[in-house]
Amino acid sequence: MPDADPAAIRGDLTENVDAAQALTENVDAAQALTEIVGAAHTLTEPDVVGGYAVDWTGRWRGAPLAVVRPADTGQVAAVVTACAAAGVPVVPQGGNTGLVGGAVPVDGSVPLSLRRLDSRGPVDAATRTAAFGAGVPLAEAQRHVAADGWEIGVDLAARDTATIGGLVATNAGGERVIRHGLTRGQVAGIEAVLADGSVVRRMTGLLKDNVGYDLGQLLIGSEGTLGVVTAVRLRVVPAAARRAVALVGCGSVAGAVDVLAGLRPRLDAGPGELVAAEMFVDDGLALVREHTGLGAPLPDPHPAYLLVETTGGPDDALPEALAEALEATEGVRDAVVADEPARRAALWEYRERHTEAVAADGTRRGAPPVKLDVSLPPASLGPVVDDVRGVLSSAYPDAVLYLWGHLAEGNLHLNVLGVDPADERAATDLVLRTVAAAGGSIGAEHGIGRAKVPWVGLSRSPAELAAMRAVKSALDPARLLNPGVLFD
Amino acid sequence: MPDADPAAIRGDLTENVDAAQALTENVDAAQALTEIVGAAHTLTEPDVVGGYAVDWTGRWRGAPLAVVRPADTGQVAAVVTACAAAGVPVVPQGGNTGLVGGAVPVDGSVPLSLRRLDSRGPVDAATRTAAFGAGVPLAEAQRHVAADGWEIGVDLAARDTATIGGLVATNAGGERVIRHGLTRGQVAGIEAVLADGSVVRRMTGLLKDNVGYDLGQLLIGSEGTLGVVTAVRLRVVPAAARRAVALVGCGSVAGAVDVLAGLRPRLDAGPGELVAAEMFVDDGLALVREHTGLGAPLPDPHPAYLLVETTGGPDDALPEALAEALEATEGVRDAVVADEPARRAALWEYRERHTEAVAADGTRRGAPPVKLDVSLPPASLGPVVDDVRGVLSSAYPDAVLYLWGHLAEGNLHLNVLGVDPADERAATDLVLRTVAAAGGSIGAEHGIGRAKVPWVGLSRSPAELAAMRAVKSALDPARLLNPGVLFD
Repeated sequence: MPDADPAAIRGDLTENVDAAQALTENVDAAQALTEIVGAAHTLTEPDVVGGYAVDWTGRWRGAPLAVVRPADTGQVAAVVTACAAAGVPVVPQGGNTGLVGGAVPVDGSVPLSLRRLDSRGPVDAATRTAAFGAGVPLAEAQRHVAADGWEIGVDLAARDTATIGGLVATNAGGERVIRHGLTRGQVAGIEAVLADGSVVRRMTGLLKDNVGYDLGQLLIGSEGTLGVVTAVRLRVVPAAARRAVALVGCGSVAGAVDVLAGLRPRLDAGPGELVAAEMFVDDGLALVREHTGLGAPLPDPHPAYLLVETTGGPDDALPEALAEALEATEGVRDAVVADEPARRAALWEYRERHTEAVAADGTRRGAPPVKLDVSLPPASLGPVVDDVRGVLSSAYPDAVLYLWGHLAEGNLHLNVLGVDPADERAATDLVLRTVAAAGGSIGAEHGIGRAKVPWVGLSRSPAELAAMRAVKSALDPARLLNPGVLFD
Repeated sequence: MPDADPAAIRGDLTENVDAAQALTENVDAAQALTEIVGAAHTLTEPDVVGGYAVDWTGRWRGAPLAVVRPADTGQVAAVVTACAAAGVPVVPQGGNTGLVGGAVPVDGSVPLSLRRLDSRGPVDAATRTAAFGAGVPLAEAQRHVAADGWEIGVDLAARDTATIGGLVATNAGGERVIRHGLTRGQVAGIEAVLADGSVVRRMTGLLKDNVGYDLGQLLIGSEGTLGVVTAVRLRVVPAAARRAVALVGCGSVAGAVDVLAGLRPRLDAGPGELVAAEMFVDDGLALVREHTGLGAPLPDPHPAYLLVETTGGPDDALPEALAEALEATEGVRDAVVADEPARRAALWEYRERHTEAVAADGTRRGAPPVKLDVSLPPASLGPVVDDVRGVLSSAYPDAVLYLWGHLAEGNLHLNVLGVDPADERAATDLVLRTVAAAGGSIGAEHGIGRAKVPWVGLSRSPAELAAMRAVKSALDPARLLNPGVLFD
C-alpha cells in the first residue's frame, strides 16, 4: 500500500521551513524531548522529518515541531508528560499507512513514531495469545507466530507496513473479518499511555477479566485521541493446514452479493471454513491488468468478481468442496479454483493490487484519488454503487470511480479520480450522503481521521457525539492527543 | 440458577417498610413514574416489590422507592430523565440472576426492570445478526434463532432467566467462550439510555462502522453504571449439525489443565471444533449426585473431571474423532463419549447442577455460599486451588470449598461454605488475595457489583481506576446510575 515516492515527499518538505521555525520557538520543549529519547531519535531536519509529516497519498501533511522516536513505553509516557507540560500536541504514528490523515502531524505538534516499540513475545499456547510492541508491522507479527504454527486473525493488503498499534487504534478490518471479526475481536490485552502520561495495562493474557470499564476496548478505534497504544496482546489461531481460493465471475455487484449469500450456507455444511469474500469489478480489473501486466483471470470478462477463500484441516478436500458449492450456487457465471500456493497468490493479486493501480492512475492524472471507505447493508451494495456512479457523473462528467471491497460486511472502498481538486470536498459530500441515505456508515475500517470529520454527523446522532465529547474531555481535557482527529 | 424460593423472599420483605416510607416522602417522583409507565407497572407493594429487591441467593437486598417496569426504550428514557430530575438513583435489572449484587436496588432507588423489553427480531442472514430487547431471556433468544437453523454464541447455565441486557451489562462468559469469546464478541449493536435520558443506538447491523468511540463497547461490562442497555443486536452462527460430548476422568485440577492442553491441538487437526471445556472435582460431583440422585458418570471415581464438547458438520464422525483424540492424550484416566442428545445432556447435568447443589447445601447450613468468580493463567489453576484450600482451612477449619469452572480461560467458580457470616468478608479477602498474588483476576465473568468493590484495587492499577472514575464522572456526573456498583 505505501507506494508513495519518498524522494518526492522530501522534495516537497525541504521547501517547508515551518518545522524549523516552530522548533526555534520551542527550544525548551525540544530539549526536553531530546533528553528523553536521545538526539538520534529527536528528528528535526526537514528532509528526515518529511516521511513522518505527510501520508503516503500525499494528501495530508503538517509541519511538526520534532518527530520523536521513543524506545519503550516509559519513554512514550515521558514524552507525553513533557508535551502535556509544554502544551504541545502529540500525534501517535505507526506505519503511516492511513488514508484519512489520522496519523499526520498538525503544525507545531510532536509526531510520536512508535516503530521502535518492536518487541515480539512468544505464543502462549494455553491462552492462544502473543504480545507485541505497537510498532511491529502486521506481516512481521504474522511471520513471528507462523514459526510455531499459528496465524493472526487479522490480515490486510498493507500488512508489510501497517503496525499492530495502528490496527488497534483504527480497529482495522481487512480480509479475514468474515471469519475473525475486526481487530477488536483479536485483542486480548492493551497497554497504553493516557494524556496525563499515566500507563494503563492489561497484558496478562487473562481471557476473562471483567473488573470495571474495559479501557482497552474504549481505546480500540479511538484513533489516538484518548491514548497512545504501546503494546497489544493479540489472539492467535492454529494455522490452516489447507487453503482454497476461488475467483468467481458474477453479473453485477448485486449479483456477487447474491452469489455469496447462496454460497455461504453450502460452505457451512461442508468441509472448510469461509475466511474471505472480496469483491471487485470490471473496470478496476482492467486498470489492475494494465498496471501490472497480469493476464485475464477467466476466459471471458464479467461485470463483477467475487474472490473467496476457505481453510480447513489436512484431510479436507477443500478445492473440490469449493468447486462443488460453486457449481450448486445460482448466479455463478464462471469460476476458477486454486489450492496450490502460487496459484492462490496469483488470484489474490487481482484484488490486492487495486490500491497501487489506482494510486498510479492518480499520479498519471496529477492528483491522488479521493479514497472513501464506507459500509452498507449487503442488499444495498448494488443499488448504492449505481447511485454513487449516477450522482458523481451528473455532477462531474469527468469523474472516474474505482471500487472494491469486503463483501460480507458490505464494506466498499470507493476511489474517485478525475475530479478537480477544488471540487473534491463537494464530491465527497455527494458520495457520503448517498451512502448515509441508504443506511450505510461513512466510516467502515479506515477511521475518520481528519478527512471525514465534517461528515461524522451523518453516522452518529447528536446524543452519541455529545457522549463521545464528554469521554474525550474526561480523558484528554487539554485536547493534546491527536487534535483535529474525530472532532473539530 | 435462580432457585431461590420466592415465598421466602416475600416473607423477608413484608417486614421491610422502608420502601413504603421512602415512597411517601417522594410522592412527586412516584407520581411522575406512574404517569410514564402506568400504575400497573409502578410497583410499590412490599410483597410485589420483594422479588426485585433481593438477589436469588438472598445475600443482597435493598428497599426501593418503587419498581418500574417500562414497556419500551422511550419509557426507559423518560424514567431515567424523571429520576435524574428528582435526584433518585436508578438500578437497571434484567433476570436478577447476578451473584455480586449488581442489580439489587439500593435504598430509595428505582429498580428499572427491563423484562418487558422483550422484542425479538428476525435473523438477518446477510449479516448473521438478530435484534433483541434487553429483557429477552437467553434461552428464549436461543429458541427464537434455532427455528431458522441458527445458534447464539453465548450459553450459560442461567439461560432460562438471565436476560440479553444483563449478559451485555456484565460481559457474561459461560460455556462457549473457548469458541466464541465473551458476550462482547457476540454483540453487533447496542441501544442504550444514558444518565441524562438521551438514547444512543447502533442497531443497523452494519458489521464495520468505525465512526468515533464505540460507546456500546464501553457499556459492555459496565454493569449498568454508564447507561441502561435497552436492545442488543447479537451475532448468530449456523447451528451445528452434530455434537459430541466427553466426560474425562483426570488425576487433579492441574492434570485436567494438561489433558486439555494435549487434547486441543489434536482436535484442531481433525473434524469437529472444540466449543466447551468445563472442569469440576470429586467432592463437587459427590454433592451433585447426593442432591440430584444421578448415578456415577464413570465406573471409578477420579480427583477431577473435564467435560468437553465438539461440534461439526453432518458428515463428521465426531464421537469417533473425539474418542481417538482422547486415547492419544496423556493424562486421560478414563472417558465416556456421547453423541445422542439425551446422553449428552446427561453428561452436562453433572456440571450444570453444581450451582443448585451448592445452593441447597447452603440452605442446609443456614447460610448461602460465598460465591467468588476468578480467573487465572491456566498453568496456575492447580497450584492456586491447592493454595486456596490451604489458606481457607488454616483460617477457618470448618470451611468447605466447592469449585468448578471454564478451563480454557482459567475461570474458576469458588463457593465457600461453613464460614461464620461474620468472617465472610475476611474469607473473601484471603481467597481474592491468593488469586491476585498468582497473577489472577478477582472478577472473571460475574462482574464486580457491590460484592467485590473493596477488592477492585487488586486487579486494577490506580491509573486505571482514575481513568474509570473520569469516564464515570463524564457520563453520569450525578452518580445516579447504579450507585455503589464498581465504585465506592
